[in-house]
Amino acid sequence: MKERGLLIVLSGPSGVGKGTVRKALFSQPDIQLQYSISVTTRKPREGEVDGVDYFFKTREQFEQMIRQNELLEWAEYVGNYYGTPIDYVEKTLQEGKDVFLEIEVQGAMQVRKVFPEALFIFLAPPSLSELRKRIEMRGTESEDLIRDRLQAAKEELEMMDAYDYVVENDQVELACERIKAIVMAEHCRRERVAQRYKKMLEVE
Amino acid sequence: MKERGLLIVLSGPSGVGKGTVRKALFSQPDIQLQYSISVTTRKPREGEVDGVDYFFKTREQFEQMIRQNELLEWAEYVGNYYGTPIDYVEKTLQEGKDVFLEIEVQGAMQVRKVFPEALFIFLAPPSLSELRKRIEMRGTESEDLIRDRLQAAKEELEMMDAYDYVVENDQVELACERIKAIVMAEHCRRERVAQRYKKMLEVE
Repeated sequence: MKERGLLIVLSGPSGVGKGTVRKALFSQPDIQLQYSISVTTRKPREGEVDGVDYFFKTREQFEQMIRQNELLEWAEYVGNYYGTPIDYVEKTLQEGKDVFLEIEVQGAMQVRKVFPEALFIFLAPPSLSELRKRIEMRGTESEDLIRDRLQAAKEELEMMDAYDYVVENDQVELACERIKAIVMAEHCRRERVAQRYKKMLEVE
Repeated sequence: MKERGLLIVLSGPSGVGKGTVRKALFSQPDIQLQYSISVTTRKPREGEVDGVDYFFKTREQFEQMIRQNELLEWAEYVGNYYGTPIDYVEKTLQEGKDVFLEIEVQGAMQVRKVFPEALFIFLAPPSLSELRKRIEMRGTESEDLIRDRLQAAKEELEMMDAYDYVVENDQVELACERIKAIVMAEHCRRERVAQRYKKMLEVE
């Protein structure tokens, strides 16, 4: 039996650049992750291909998928549905491949209920290092600006509580490196390797 | 105040290639780890420099270091003492730098008592993948050989219990990549990043 793959969930506050990081990650030639294509009811944009960018569905089809529990997570944005088909995720994990999801924060919380063993990566804006700079430059910055940044950092801190890792998106390339390192490291976790050993020893 | 560095301990069964992996790791130009130089009572070999390869000490000096609790871990091999000076480790961690130790299994257990928060990486021989191959080729291999491999795997499994990560030393370059990934990933762990956020927010 194949060892089950890892489910990696990238999420974070809106506008942080999740899509940009995901695209950069999957444009790398050596990437070993399987991207789970979302289902949507929005119309394809020019150049978008069904089954590559999205699975395009009607509202009726999508609502049927919801009723039949075919979606791992879903949400409605500006009048359109977006969701993750559970069968692809489950099948690919069973094949021993790592699956990558890039979804909204609410979706990530839904995934956690079904796959508590998944890796949850919070993509954070570079506000912390910016904040540090601003505090260091105190006097040359307005107190209002510093207060806004501190408020944003407080909100991020609360959000990240449900995640295993936090990757700061200060540079897209660096964020990709960190995500790949997390996946590689998780494959080396003793519990996982020991399980492989145990399975092998049971052969005897 | 600087954030404390990580203490990374590489260990594993003797003969697995710990020294080779450590040398390959530190020959990389981008390496951010600080290597903790060991103290020894053995004579310098040709080309070895005091303070670079080892700190060379007399038995009297070494035994005094033991008595004065100046060693994080130590052991005696074939008539010579080897040990890790605790002051360098502690000072470097306080400076916010990651410290790397490459030590024997017994030494690693000593380090765990003093620094339970350290990262313990077990370097494993490629016996598991070899074992897999041998089992797959059953019929062409002697049963004795398979039995020996299974016994070795059982012993490794027991040893690795006290470690956080297991890195298979199938290829030295790949083992180095895995170790670097583990260090990078550990810096992204939510608990650590959240602590940075909290410290920053206390500034206010």
